[in-house]
Amino acid sequence: MAIVHLTRRERFNAAHKLWVEHWSEEKNREVFGKCSNSNWHGHNYDLYVTVKGTPDPETGFIMNVKELSKILKEKVIEKLDHSNLNLDVDFIPKGMQPTTENLVVLIWQEIEEDIAGFGARLHSVKLFETENIFAEYLGE
Amino acid sequence: MAIVHLTRRERFNAAHKLWVEHWSEEKNREVFGKCSNSNWHGHNYDLYVTVKGTPDPETGFIMNVKELSKILKEKVIEKLDHSNLNLDVDFIPKGMQPTTENLVVLIWQEIEEDIAGFGARLHSVKLFETENIFAEYLGE
Amino acid sequence: MAIVHLTRRERFNAAHKLWVEHWSEEKNREVFGKCSNSNWHGHNYDLYVTVKGTPDPETGFIMNVKELSKILKEKVIEKLDHSNLNLDVDFIPKGMQPTTENLVVLIWQEIEEDIAGFGARLHSVKLFETENIFAEYLGE
Amino acid sequence: MAIVHLTRRERFNAAHKLWVEHWSEEKNREVFGKCSNSNWHGHNYDLYVTVKGTPDPETGFIMNVKELSKILKEKVIEKLDHSNLNLDVDFIPKGMQPTTENLVVLIWQEIEEDIAGFGARLHSVKLFETENIFAEYLGE
Amino acid sequence: MAIVHLTRRERFNAAHKLWVEHWSEEKNREVFGKCSNSNWHGHNYDLYVTVKGTPDPETGFIMNVKELSKILKEKVIEKLDHSNLNLDVDFIPKGMQPTTENLVVLIWQEIEEDIAGFGARLHSVKLFETENIFAEYLGE
Amino acid sequence: MAIVHLTRRERFNAAHKLWVEHWSEEKNREVFGKCSNSNWHGHNYDLYVTVKGTPDPETGFIMNVKELSKILKEKVIEKLDHSNLNLDVDFIPKGMQPTTENLVVLIWQEIEEDIAGFGARLHSVKLFETENIFAEYLGE
Repeated sequence: MAIVHLTRRERFNAAHKLWVEHWSEEKNREVFGKCSNSNWHGHNYDLYVTVKGTPDPETGFIMNVKELSKILKEKVIEKLDHSNLNLDVDFIPKGMQPTTENLVVLIWQEIEEDIAGFGARLHSVKLFETENIFAEYLGE
Repeated sequence: MAIVHLTRRERFNAAHKLWVEHWSEEKNREVFGKCSNSNWHGHNYDLYVTVKGTPDPETGFIMNVKELSKILKEKVIEKLDHSNLNLDVDFIPKGMQPTTENLVVLIWQEIEEDIAGFGARLHSVKLFETENIFAEYLGE
Repeated sequence: MAIVHLTRRERFNAAHKLWVEHWSEEKNREVFGKCSNSNWHGHNYDLYVTVKGTPDPETGFIMNVKELSKILKEKVIEKLDHSNLNLDVDFIPKGMQPTTENLVVLIWQEIEEDIAGFGARLHSVKLFETENIFAEYLGE
Repeated sequence: MAIVHLTRRERFNAAHKLWVEHWSEEKNREVFGKCSNSNWHGHNYDLYVTVKGTPDPETGFIMNVKELSKILKEKVIEKLDHSNLNLDVDFIPKGMQPTTENLVVLIWQEIEEDIAGFGARLHSVKLFETENIFAEYLGE
Repeated sequence: MAIVHLTRRERFNAAHKLWVEHWSEEKNREVFGKCSNSNWHGHNYDLYVTVKGTPDPETGFIMNVKELSKILKEKVIEKLDHSNLNLDVDFIPKGMQPTTENLVVLIWQEIEEDIAGFGARLHSVKLFETENIFAEYLGE
Repeated sequence: MAIVHLTRRERFNAAHKLWVEHWSEEKNREVFGKCSNSNWHGHNYDLYVTVKGTPDPETGFIMNVKELSKILKEKVIEKLDHSNLNLDVDFIPKGMQPTTENLVVLIWQEIEEDIAGFGARLHSVKLFETENIFAEYLGE
């Protein structure tokens, strides 16, 4: 009974900034650099979600990738795509920095239960902010 | 004695379809969507195979990557490249769906022993079907 | 009045083979190699379509990229995606080899008029068959 | 005396939205879709600038790519990176839509003279907004 | 207290060859092939370094990616970029083959302590020599 | 009678440096920076060669891509791969800087006649030195 990992990529484009309200502008600038610019900046985010399980003997599927894609679109992409991550997204707490590190944990929490409903287990949420920076959460 | 992972990419182009013989056309269409089209479709597959071991003190090699590439070409690529995955490949059981999930397990079984013959251990078989979907098997 | 080029990528996955009916199997094999395998093979195709024109002073658009994408999906992608290029596509003449060189000319003819209907001119149809081979047609 | 093209890539991340002030919200939504969302969104932009000229017999350079990169950084990247394209950039006229089509023309105007100062000619400004959409301006 | 992985990519270009001094030319050629060519060859190396830890509640950072990038530049990139890996680098022992397998272990040793100084743990050093070959070290 | 462009990618890895013999070390350093380092550095080069012509009515080929690939391998890749571009390559004049600008012209001259022998015309030689820098020659 082999355990196989299956990964689906989805993409979204969003604006954000990094800014701690009770810090001075100087401290924000020192810690966050250009990421603290007041009028926002943005990224093309690449999201890779990995589930694991045993392939079904008839379909060869861990779970139907169409179902996985549907969960990601409804629970994550529709909320994040063309949004402002600091202002617009219900599952990002106000005041929490929208860093890739925080986003992968929040996205995990949004989708874990739905994936379990299809008999697979969520294994990894990985998010690229640029070609040079990405974060990954494994549920630990 | 450090354990290092070494990965080699190989590529192949193949046709396939997803279709369960004893299902109706309607059920096949409902589960597999366009992947059930009767006249086949195809993909450029990217295969990443990872082996692990301790680098040899003289060569700096876990195993010679030329040997790894040779195993992959003889045991996998020559059989899969420009083939029909449902019809042409001796190590894919007839009637088993040629999904990426099933393929990574089958490829693992084809190459595990040969790699062990060079003193390395097979760690991962990862297969990209498109830029958006891939499966990975870790031998568990 | 600057002339700007705008490019949209779309993708499709398809099966095909290269085979001249009135040639012997030997000659087909000699000219087309593995591409003549009888049970088909397939590719992930990347299609880049470029239009040109002057950006509208209000919208900044040469033509709305949503309209360009809609034309490509209706006239090209829905017909080619998950198809057999030798058997299934109405705008590929039976017996014409589905090479990338022929496909870019055929795709051009399918979309040129629709794009002109939006006030832009078709400039280029480029098609990648693999990361190593692509063809481009500029309408000349 | 061969004429050779030399291309340098630079990158920037920015926020923007598409919005015509004297249109209704409905019309903005109809034309620009999600790109009109009020709280901005953003992209990782990839900028490719091509110059042409004859390689110098001693250096083999059309122009020193360090000088080209310096021009791009000072005149373009420092102004656009981590900026809001609608609000922050001196060479983007207020009210002009920051579409890729408009941006390539504006960037051309910013750098053409500086490049000529090094004896090369500007040939192309190409800008990717996503992996699926890019614009190019050739100075015509 | 979620544990998140954060990865930063850096790049360098270097020359090297694979050659065991006390072997004959024939044996070097047999084992290393073209990689033993006497006048060197070279690569564009892509280095991915992954750290892990708990995101800070205020900054959302495991460690500031600017600090991670600074460590990589000072301890690794400045030494390896535009160097000869067999001759020029203080942390590569003379006579040790500069294979990707050996390099990932040596790079790990160069940076592990500095990363710990920022409260994060080094998780992985991954190095691409070409698009087809890469090695990874996980500290085990 | 459509004119279509067909492009083939090949790759090679090589060492080089930029250095003008009759200049001082200071001037070499000032002009070429790290590229003048005495012990060489290297790159993974990506070569794109484009030919043009009318697709053959029977084969759908401008020229058989296997023939194009064979010319590139024999005339270019076998000479450049795992070589030192300053020392080892017969078609690079001694003392000429192995910049991408010079290389695309030299490669053009090596292959133009052979391609004409197959009834196609050489259209472009494009060479990537890194993901950020490439040169192209169109034969003008």
